[in-house]
Amino acid sequence: MKIVINIQLKEGVLDPQGKAVHHALLALQFNEVQDARIGKQIILHVEDGEKDKILKRVKNMCENLLANTVIETYTIDIED
Amino acid sequence: MKIVINIQLKEGVLDPQGKAVHHALLALQFNEVQDARIGKQIILHVEDGEKDKILKRVKNMCENLLANTVIETYTIDIED
Repeated sequence: MKIVINIQLKEGVLDPQGKAVHHALLALQFNEVQDARIGKQIILHVEDGEKDKILKRVKNMCENLLANTVIETYTIDIED
Repeated sequence: MKIVINIQLKEGVLDPQGKAVHHALLALQFNEVQDARIGKQIILHVEDGEKDKILKRVKNMCENLLANTVIETYTIDIED
């Protein structure tokens, strides 16, 4: 089972990497870009099972290891 | 207009960061995890316009700056 976890910095948290990308895009004449923010996408493959249980486990993984919930938010998508 | 770009290492390209996360998850008793791979998610806000044109421009951004197409693949989603 494939799990896609997207982790982004919360609104209001400074994102220097995103700022750098934004500046680089402007320097390349992509002037239509108003803002850029950079996060992580983690793709897990886990053993098949009940979706509810898997979701609970993956949420645990995010809280305990993958995301820093003080400054980051995450979403979990389960793909079959 | 919000653009979500997901960038992942191609299949077969070694992902040491993913390996480290996988090992850490196993150490935390998440034994159901078979594989972990880590990529980037870039969220852009761009000026509104025709979807086709925006898609072409964002593809250009990916090819020229955001992704290393030798080792990475990317997907682009336009959200209104």
